[in-house]
Amino acid sequence: MTLIHHAPGGRLVPLAPDECWALLREHGVGRLAWVGGEGLSVTPVNYSVDDSAQVHGGALAVVVRTTAHSTIARECGGRPVALEVDDLDEETRNGWSVLARGQAELRLSAPLPGMDHPPVLPDSWPAGTRPVLLRLEVDLLTGRRLEA
Amino acid sequence: MTLIHHAPGGRLVPLAPDECWALLREHGVGRLAWVGGEGLSVTPVNYSVDDSAQVHGGALAVVVRTTAHSTIARECGGRPVALEVDDLDEETRNGWSVLARGQAELRLSAPLPGMDHPPVLPDSWPAGTRPVLLRLEVDLLTGRRLEA
Repeated sequence: MTLIHHAPGGRLVPLAPDECWALLREHGVGRLAWVGGEGLSVTPVNYSVDDSAQVHGGALAVVVRTTAHSTIARECGGRPVALEVDDLDEETRNGWSVLARGQAELRLSAPLPGMDHPPVLPDSWPAGTRPVLLRLEVDLLTGRRLEA
Repeated sequence: MTLIHHAPGGRLVPLAPDECWALLREHGVGRLAWVGGEGLSVTPVNYSVDDSAQVHGGALAVVVRTTAHSTIARECGGRPVALEVDDLDEETRNGWSVLARGQAELRLSAPLPGMDHPPVLPDSWPAGTRPVLLRLEVDLLTGRRLEA
């Protein structure tokens, strides 16, 4: 245990959607949450922000790649999911968190024919092919920062 | 962007329940997930492991403190919740994650009269009194480690 003098406690400040998107873009690891066969599930994932639909006036989204037989591929299609991304500093006790909520859509991650602006796919840490793309079109984006 | 040579990909290895409990005890910050009025919610929390009930043969639990009017206090009582704790290293691309699932029980955090072994309460980072204790009696504990 490091001996650090902690301030009496920080203040939670809400983040504007622009700040939330900026933080999501700067990072690439988050936690995907959904309700599946075993109840609530939360698991770390590599993600990227997908601007491709915006070109045609569509919504911003985050994308996650997964294997064909993963729990995510089996349980998340067409269901509400949430992606939480944060950076929490145990020493200073500062940090922020962002929560993106929406419906998950599953598709093959190979670019579709005639797709001018395919999404930039996240680089996955675990080995193995990840042909399935989970696309979370963000309906609700919230975040907060803890300031000393 | 740091230029680091990444191995072709890591291997996901399941963790035994003992390893999961050891990791939960070593850490104090996780993410609480539940389904509430706005759908899926995931928020960072300070937690501690509560051994107090074990003395009487009860289950191990994790505890989180919250304010009287927080979303957690309003939405989690008697509902299924999950606590996710992880440590993910963006440089080495190694890491682990643990997921504790169960039912949330809310009570006042002041020790009850006649309670021999009150739970050790987590130290909360944000300021403000946190008189409500969320106790998650763990029904399902899973974890995995990503090895290079």
